[in-house]
This record gives sequence, C-alpha cells and structure tokens, in this order.
Amino acid sequence: MADPTFISGKIVRVTEGQLFNEEDQVAVEEPLEIRLGNSPIAVTMRTPGHDRELAVGFLFTEGIIHSPDDIAAVTGPHRSLPNVVSVKLKRGLRFDRGRLKRHFYTTSSCGVCGKTALQAIRVKSQPISSGFKVPVALLYTLPERLREEQETFEETGALHAAALFDEKGEILYLREDVGRHNAVDKVLGAALLEKRVPLDRHILMVSGRTSFEIMQKALVGRIPVVAAISAPSSLAVALAREFKMTLVGFLRGRRFNVYAGRERIV
Amino acid sequence: MADPTFISGKIVRVTEGQLFNEEDQVAVEEPLEIRLGNSPIAVTMRTPGHDRELAVGFLFTEGIIHSPDDIAAVTGPHRSLPNVVSVKLKRGLRFDRGRLKRHFYTTSSCGVCGKTALQAIRVKSQPISSGFKVPVALLYTLPERLREEQETFEETGALHAAALFDEKGEILYLREDVGRHNAVDKVLGAALLEKRVPLDRHILMVSGRTSFEIMQKALVGRIPVVAAISAPSSLAVALAREFKMTLVGFLRGRRFNVYAGRERIV
Repeated sequence: MADPTFISGKIVRVTEGQLFNEEDQVAVEEPLEIRLGNSPIAVTMRTPGHDRELAVGFLFTEGIIHSPDDIAAVTGPHRSLPNVVSVKLKRGLRFDRGRLKRHFYTTSSCGVCGKTALQAIRVKSQPISSGFKVPVALLYTLPERLREEQETFEETGALHAAALFDEKGEILYLREDVGRHNAVDKVLGAALLEKRVPLDRHILMVSGRTSFEIMQKALVGRIPVVAAISAPSSLAVALAREFKMTLVGFLRGRRFNVYAGRERIV
Repeated sequence: MADPTFISGKIVRVTEGQLFNEEDQVAVEEPLEIRLGNSPIAVTMRTPGHDRELAVGFLFTEGIIHSPDDIAAVTGPHRSLPNVVSVKLKRGLRFDRGRLKRHFYTTSSCGVCGKTALQAIRVKSQPISSGFKVPVALLYTLPERLREEQETFEETGALHAAALFDEKGEILYLREDVGRHNAVDKVLGAALLEKRVPLDRHILMVSGRTSFEIMQKALVGRIPVVAAISAPSSLAVALAREFKMTLVGFLRGRRFNVYAGRERIV
C-alpha cells in the first residue's frame, strides 16, 4: 500500500468576502526517525514514502556510509512504527556513539541548525573531473519532463521535487517531499542502493532554489551538473566553482543561466 | 554599513540557443555561528543582516530564553568575525553544557535534521486563548503590503520573507533570508528585543509555505494568526488546531483558505 502523499480535511474557502465550507488536500508532513542499528541519530520532517531511500541517502550525504556495501540491512518503517527506519551497518564498520554524536552535533548538514563550527561547513571532497557534456537542447527539455512526472505538484503546490536524469535526459528517479533536502536525499539514496554512484554522467534537477546544502549533497554523489527552476545562493555558486560542478539556474522554457562550469554546456 | 543582501557575479545567460556573458545578482548565503557566551551552540546558513535578531530569535524559539530580561548582552558580528554572534545570559541563568548539547541534539527544531526522538517534536505549550479577530478585508491587504516592502524579492526570487503585522494591518517588521526559518526567527528576535512578546494581537505572514516548524515558532511568540501565500503541511494544520491558532493559506488577491481557527476571521 502506498503512503498517502496528501490528506483531505475540512477548510473554509473565502472568496470576495464569501465563505464556503469545502474539502481540501494538504501535503503530509510527518517526522521520520533514522536509526543506526538501535540508536536514533536524526529525525527529519518528511513526506512519507521512499523512507528507506531517505534514510540511506541521509547517511550517504552525511558521510556516514560511502557505498551500498556498507549496509547490512535496512528495516522499517513497520506498521507498528510507521515513522522509524533503521540502517544496520556491515560488521567491521563501527562508530563509537560519542564520535557519532559529535559528528552530528557539528556537521549535520542543515540550513537551519546543528552546525557548531564554521570550519565544519566546507565538505572534504575533491573537485569533479567528469568530462560529461550537456547539450543546450537537452537542458531545455528537463523542466517539462519533470512536470510531466510530477503529477502531484500542481495539485497543492506544497511539495518540492528532485529528479535524477541520465545523459539522454531520461528520468531515473523523481522524488517529492515537503523538505527539499529530503527530496534530494531520497534520490541519492535510491541511486546508491541501485549501485549507480558515482553519478558522473548525470544531472540533478530541483524544482526550487539551490543552496549550499543541495550542492553539497550533489557533490557527495559526484553529480557534475545541477539544474534548478529558481535561483542559486551565493554559497551554492561558490561551492560549484570550487568543486568544478556545473550549476544552472532559472531553467524555464528555452532559457537558463549558467553560474558555474559552463564548459560542460555544449 | 548595511550587509549586502545580494552580490554580483559573471554568468552566462542562454536564450534560444544563444549565449550571452552577463552580470547577475545572487542572494548572499553565509553561515552564522550562534554562541551562548563563548560556547558555539548552532550554525545556521543565513543571509547576513539582522544577525543579532536572528541569534536572539533562535534562542527564543528554541526555548533557551523566554524574555529580553534573560539577556545580559548581545555582541557581534564584528569586522574580524563577521559570521559570529554571541549572546550572554543574565547571571543566574545557567545552562550546564551537557544539558544544552542534549537539548540541541534532541530538539533543535529543523526541517531536516537534529531531532533524535519523535517525542521531542511536540512542543510543550498551552493553546492560544487570544480573542483577537481579523476582518477578511484586512487579510486581503496583507500580500500587497508585504510585496511593497519586499523590494528585493522581485529582484532574484531567491529570498524568503516573514513579516509581523499589528491589528491594524501595519507591518512592524519585515525580514528576508535564504532560509525561511531564519526570516521568522529574525522577526521574533526583533519583537522580543523590543519587548512586544507575547504577540497576542498580531499576524505573522510568510511568503511561502507553512510547516510544523513555522507554526511552532509562531506558537512560542504566542501569535494567534499565521497567514501564508502558499500551502500548509498536514502537521502545520494539526499544530494550529491543537493549539487554537488561526492558519490561513493561499492568501492571494481577494481569496484565501482557512485551515484552522476560523472563529478569528470576521
């Protein structure tokens, strides 16, 4: 049974001073607790669905795991515990809890909280050397493909989307979530579980804006090209330039801006 | 000197297959380290400006401080440390660091990370009993007032806005940020510093969507009415209903939806 992405409720619609009692749908937001074995390590507010991919993607983009071989088992969510996913690591991969807590306390990659040192912001990573090139004409097609797949988006305007495209411009994964970081983690978790990482001939597209966070997650997946419908932040641009990633913004119709890595656009 | 909200950089604009070298502006995103005395307790990715309000608002909505009287001094950002603000608490208000770390580890109110227990999600708070009423005609005027004040928004589409309105529909504070939670924290920090809390005859308006987080922050400020241009999440609606708050969504032109607390709309 699929998780409900939207739920109905009674609302009052007001138009031109008149009140109407109606049913309306809102996007589901629920906490997901991610456990490493039996230890809770994070809770994220997410739209239910693809929860195992979200948990795996979170651990991957946080630097806790690096390959599907690091995972012994992923369990949950269960009917009795619908908001918990547990990832068991391979024997030999051990984290002492103290170290883990410090890790999350200092580097949990979130736009709002959790980092205690500026030094923890810049991820330790190599620039992306992929010689992957993207034709302008292919980029033009991405927003339409995203929209076609993203049936639910039009419905309430309440979900962020992230999609991974291959070099032919075909969508490999589309994931939606109330949290835009979650949508990206779901995509990266799916790709990791299917052994597609490094994603060095792929394009990550997001429905909104690009932040430092989004670029950091794409970098961990070794994705050379990130495209967005809206604007990037200054730090998203800085990260893209530092790590030789291509960053496209305002991709709408037959227009876009290239903020970094134009050598990949042909 | 005001902090730059936007910075210019070289981009390549692509239109109908033609490339143009141009200058474009992007919204500034920089980390802010918030310290309690000398101890770093959080880093948030924010748009510089109103940093003291952001630090105070963060501590307030996280439940670390409850009134301006809890603060002995707010220092920074300094030219030598442009991304650090330190809040010194009044003598007698002491937090042992272990407790503080656990607090942040378990309840840091973020959409993406930092919570380790589902039980920590629901804030401990009383329902809002304010008898404040809002005329439909006044609600209609808010988006236009927000837009008038929000000059920068149209420019890049890269900033979230939050505004606090009084009962006459006048804007008391408008704050913009790459992070929508930061925009709300800046507004609440400003209100706390000016001794306006509890904000029981006020309206909080946000330029985007409403999440559980946003409602939780409004609840801490005791704001009875929250209005948004876009949709709420299921948990935003649930929190509003549980704590007797009025939640308005899709406020555009002469239309809106009431998701909770319709008794305040007259």
